[in-house]
Amino acid sequence: MTAIHELVDRYLQIWNQREPAARGAGVRAVFSDACSYTDPLAAVTGHDGVDRFIAGVQQQFAGVRFVLAGAVDTHHDVARFTWHARAEGRAEPLAIGFDVVVVDAGRIQQVVGFLDKLPS
Amino acid sequence: MTAIHELVDRYLQIWNQREPAARGAGVRAVFSDACSYTDPLAAVTGHDGVDRFIAGVQQQFAGVRFVLAGAVDTHHDVARFTWHARAEGRAEPLAIGFDVVVVDAGRIQQVVGFLDKLPS
Repeated sequence: MTAIHELVDRYLQIWNQREPAARGAGVRAVFSDACSYTDPLAAVTGHDGVDRFIAGVQQQFAGVRFVLAGAVDTHHDVARFTWHARAEGRAEPLAIGFDVVVVDAGRIQQVVGFLDKLPS
Repeated sequence: MTAIHELVDRYLQIWNQREPAARGAGVRAVFSDACSYTDPLAAVTGHDGVDRFIAGVQQQFAGVRFVLAGAVDTHHDVARFTWHARAEGRAEPLAIGFDVVVVDAGRIQQVVGFLDKLPS
């Protein structure tokens, strides 16, 4: 597993970490200080901005888990991958998203996300 | 057509503009001064870096045209889209790529590109 693959893995773990202190520590470890995160629902910056947005999504989608779907495609300091939001007892993902991440000095500096299936 | 759609359209026109002065003018009009472009084959910055890279690809793939394939998906100041590199007389695209662009003040500040089909 390359460093970027591992970082994407740790990034998705943050989305499944619902204990606030652990989630905040995860954000600080995985994201650069001057990070930005933009998806159709949010455009936030910095550790607090990212943490607050993830916390809000977690509250909205209780019991949902975020998992990698398919390969992580990387080159230089960037990666793209698709993720599924899975709810227990449902065969189909609740939502499907696609992220591009830009890495700087071992942490995620930027996430640009899109939705392929809106939460239903 | 939104401003970002139009910008994506002008971006692809640059790839098909093989007259050096017109291509350079296109790059300066479409890209921010402090732009970056990263795909599997290149990581360049600034107008000159982008223009030189596009010129090199054009030399390598004479007679190839770059066209939008499918919808441009946008939110905030970002967009994603797929493009095809088409060679005359060939039914299948020579190459298929996917770009995410970040726009700042009406110009492209950043392109992060991936290849879905390598040039054959």
